Amino acid sequence: MNTLIGQGVAAIDTPALVIDLDAMQRNLAAMATFAHERGLRLRPHAKMHKSAWIAQQQIAQGAVGVCVQKTSEAEALAAQGVRDILITNEVIDQAKLNRIAVLAREARLGVAVDCALGIERLAAALKAADSRLDVFVEIDVGHGRCGVPPREAAALARSVMERGLRFAGLQAYHGRAQHLRGFAERSAAIAAAAAAVREALGALAAEGIGCPLVSGAGTGSFVLEAGSGLWGELQCGSYLFMDRDYADNDAPAGTPRFEHALFVRSQVMSCAADRAVIDAGHKSHAIDSGLPRVWQREDLEFVNGGDEHGLVIRRTAAARLPGLGEAVWLVPGHCDPTVNLHDRMVGVRGGLAGGTVERIIRVDARGCTA
Amino acid sequence: MNTLIGQGVAAIDTPALVIDLDAMQRNLAAMATFAHERGLRLRPHAKMHKSAWIAQQQIAQGAVGVCVQKTSEAEALAAQGVRDILITNEVIDQAKLNRIAVLAREARLGVAVDCALGIERLAAALKAADSRLDVFVEIDVGHGRCGVPPREAAALARSVMERGLRFAGLQAYHGRAQHLRGFAERSAAIAAAAAAVREALGALAAEGIGCPLVSGAGTGSFVLEAGSGLWGELQCGSYLFMDRDYADNDAPAGTPRFEHALFVRSQVMSCAADRAVIDAGHKSHAIDSGLPRVWQREDLEFVNGGDEHGLVIRRTAAARLPGLGEAVWLVPGHCDPTVNLHDRMVGVRGGLAGGTVERIIRVDARGCTA
Repeated sequence: MNTLIGQGVAAIDTPALVIDLDAMQRNLAAMATFAHERGLRLRPHAKMHKSAWIAQQQIAQGAVGVCVQKTSEAEALAAQGVRDILITNEVIDQAKLNRIAVLAREARLGVAVDCALGIERLAAALKAADSRLDVFVEIDVGHGRCGVPPREAAALARSVMERGLRFAGLQAYHGRAQHLRGFAERSAAIAAAAAAVREALGALAAEGIGCPLVSGAGTGSFVLEAGSGLWGELQCGSYLFMDRDYADNDAPAGTPRFEHALFVRSQVMSCAADRAVIDAGHKSHAIDSGLPRVWQREDLEFVNGGDEHGLVIRRTAAARLPGLGEAVWLVPGHCDPTVNLHDRMVGVRGGLAGGTVERIIRVDARGCTA
Repeated sequence: MNTLIGQGVAAIDTPALVIDLDAMQRNLAAMATFAHERGLRLRPHAKMHKSAWIAQQQIAQGAVGVCVQKTSEAEALAAQGVRDILITNEVIDQAKLNRIAVLAREARLGVAVDCALGIERLAAALKAADSRLDVFVEIDVGHGRCGVPPREAAALARSVMERGLRFAGLQAYHGRAQHLRGFAERSAAIAAAAAAVREALGALAAEGIGCPLVSGAGTGSFVLEAGSGLWGELQCGSYLFMDRDYADNDAPAGTPRFEHALFVRSQVMSCAADRAVIDAGHKSHAIDSGLPRVWQREDLEFVNGGDEHGLVIRRTAAARLPGLGEAVWLVPGHCDPTVNLHDRMVGVRGGLAGGTVERIIRVDARGCTA
């Protein structure tokens, strides 16, 4: 794979996950600037790229650290030198908590809790490992997945402190809101999330508990959380690569413009009068948020061809189908699970058309779901 | 991971892909018996399990070899000792064809073709590598993806032979037919596929070309292909693990009964009154053919919770939700892309409830999409 470095894009075997490094770096800078100008901490979500090298690029441009969802993701990134990681998720398994407590000796870690048992087990693990970490109480701000109702935040925070652990603030993320197409719907969802955060802050204050930080927000809504004055830390991930799904959202005013930076390079391997068959199917790109789009070919449509194939058909009668061996670039529907299908990403400088391979980026935490 | 061997299932970190080895071996034997009794060759599709160890188990029980879809899959399995591999797919890229030609020096290989350019490039690669392989002409038997119309098979076979290559027969697989729920619909689809095969055989005979073999069929339809008297080799893959989607098909009379042998072991990591949140989402199981089913809990339903979470809810008012830390076993909707998410599978003997880990099975060709 490393022999690719310095070669033109035509040398990239297909299908392959390709990053337009120029576009990625513009996205990286745009979000860093946004957070900096508003005095907010930026802690990008590394569940999206799962790469220590990219995490370090984000940290070098001002991010305080990164987020992950899973214990094994934290371990994989820490093993490659990432030193500040928040697990934005509950961990209830004692063996995993023990691993986290050991890892907390060498990296600054945080983790979310939403129940007494989780706090109890975490305290036992930290005591055994003689380590400390940041404990965030997760509140359900409307997603309906993890997290306690806002009014219960105070009791959990109290429990965290009574066990001698560091209460670091609230985890408040509304995942479903990210994918509401219309700006008005997203605004309403985040307004409700903000009300939930205010309720939790009120409950904490009534108990005399200060809240050091509210962390949350994603690429679809962060302008709204940032504008609320409640969140102090943004957890956006997808902004770096962008995908078809996020690009289909109405962009609220004041949102930095992010570019597509993640692509699947595929190739036509069979042709018929009404279709070109390409060598990329849903083992190459995730389809949970819909099918990929054919990059810069509005006249073509990608049709699901199964695990290993894609069909490219005409959207207009005049469209020219790509020919045998021709490259077809896809914009994945959802970047996170697409990246997770690949062991590596090919970083290209100078654009997809005539660019050069600059770097092979390992997906260090690929498959780290545990 | 290897320290797991000999431990009980409770020691398996979650989420993890688990194989019930007893069920798998019963499935393996049932299909081997079916093929043997009908005098048919069995060449199971390894795109499903992507494991050299499993391929060798299949070969040890009478399979002539395995199928794959991709060049890099063939390379990964050959590197682990698999010596008879049919790539049931077109390869048009010259660099890939060159790799195939080199690999054909050390393993018996086959590949599908459906155009003159593919044959020309394959011939050049084989000449350069001084190797030979089996060339199958793929005909479109109704899937509408790769393959030529049946009447064009003779011209391609002629072209294969004129270039000094070995014409090995027809590749005739109807992928979409596998997933038609009703037996009547599947029967009609395979009847049409059989008519297409007859047309191609007629065209070959008219040109004086013998057809050594017709290869194809999948887990949803193989009883029909076997009954047609046309197919000589079955390419079924999913029968070994079974998934929710195949299990939802009407089983035709005379089909061996296959059991679920592939599971995701997950764990509850957050609870609310109306849901248990488990630690497996669609980074742990594919959702292209629908969501997983909760194993042996008809009263519970899996609801999509995103990349890293699943929601388990009640289907009946009396259902007991699993509690914090409790294991939840899922039957994936579609086994092939689910296996492709994991680097390894945990082989359990003695059942999911009280069994023991016997073996860690590497997914050798995981991510081999090129």
